[in-house]
Amino acid sequence: MKGDLKLFGAWPSPFMYRVIWALKLKGIHEYEHIEEDLKNKSDLLLKYNPIHKKIPVLVHHGKPICESLVILEYLDEIWPEKYKLLPTDPYERANAQFWLKYQEDLGSTILKVFLPDGGEEQERAVKESLEALKNIENALGDKKFFNGDKVGMVDLAYAWLLWQEMMQEVADVRLVDQQSFPKLWQWMINFKEAPIIKDNLPDRDEAMAHFRLELADLAKQA
Amino acid sequence: MKGDLKLFGAWPSPFMYRVIWALKLKGIHEYEHIEEDLKNKSDLLLKYNPIHKKIPVLVHHGKPICESLVILEYLDEIWPEKYKLLPTDPYERANAQFWLKYQEDLGSTILKVFLPDGGEEQERAVKESLEALKNIENALGDKKFFNGDKVGMVDLAYAWLLWQEMMQEVADVRLVDQQSFPKLWQWMINFKEAPIIKDNLPDRDEAMAHFRLELADLAKQA
Repeated sequence: MKGDLKLFGAWPSPFMYRVIWALKLKGIHEYEHIEEDLKNKSDLLLKYNPIHKKIPVLVHHGKPICESLVILEYLDEIWPEKYKLLPTDPYERANAQFWLKYQEDLGSTILKVFLPDGGEEQERAVKESLEALKNIENALGDKKFFNGDKVGMVDLAYAWLLWQEMMQEVADVRLVDQQSFPKLWQWMINFKEAPIIKDNLPDRDEAMAHFRLELADLAKQA
Repeated sequence: MKGDLKLFGAWPSPFMYRVIWALKLKGIHEYEHIEEDLKNKSDLLLKYNPIHKKIPVLVHHGKPICESLVILEYLDEIWPEKYKLLPTDPYERANAQFWLKYQEDLGSTILKVFLPDGGEEQERAVKESLEALKNIENALGDKKFFNGDKVGMVDLAYAWLLWQEMMQEVADVRLVDQQSFPKLWQWMINFKEAPIIKDNLPDRDEAMAHFRLELADLAKQA
């Protein structure tokens, strides 16, 4: 181990899971996990991520790295020899970065699908999300994972689609299903069954119970 | 030159300028510039960037790379020996990536400052933009450029602040000025005077005339 490593997270955040998966894929098991209560954030979290005040934060040798995808790239730079997360070929790498950026934009749109008050904004979000999902489905094609046969950074980034699938069951929304997005659906299965990933996923029932509470909170606020 | 290189751009896009600066900083002068009419996009642009249909697109050996920051990273990977755009130290690199991501989020917020109809959304955008600009001012501190003494990728990314400064004059909005953001103001001067950059900036009067037309178009649509 190259020095001390701390991960500030909050179950069951998919952004935290990205970091957990990356660490485990790289064979890094010795790190301290600090579980945050997002309704009562620790002074340390606020100190380490003063701008966004969000998890995940990785602290390496006392220095914080914020934003899950920035953390993943950092891990790939620091431990390049152990399981590459990004392709090494520059063109494939640029392609991966394109789809990483694409999911950031989609992430904020797709959350609006779950707005409790519905309306025009929600309708537009559904339409835009479906278009984007179709583009992702086409980009994936018949590959097992986004960059080929092994889980890589793009897969870790898009794994929130599994969370989305649980949330749509809770919220009785149907966006992604096997009929309309067969390739994405198969990818979700491949991802859940991949080595390391399958042993590090939130329990489905517990996560669904959590989303139920979150959606009830959202509805109260609306 | 490693093969043929084409840049699809549209004057005076700051996203296109990012790529022009990166190419010139790396000493790559032999490339074909294809100027797009954004109101009548070419079939080639639509073929090369079918998802976003936007400039800039760099085509290298016939293969397109889309999204300006993805292009910059690609250039840094392909020609690493000539002028590094991203720091090589993994922690400094992560820090650069953090601020690159930050400006993406700010970019969409700050555009709302120029909404012609004003209202609550605009007020919120002004407030959020000012907070973000303060964070950027603090991150910059007394450094000449974001990563030290030389123009790097973060500077190229934040250069739209110069465009913002021209737009605020056209729109009679005041967001960034020397009094409230002295360090960012100084950075803008440093950037405009930096080698390569200073010879590759849009003419101020022509750019202002362009923004005047754009804002008039926006007002008509609103």
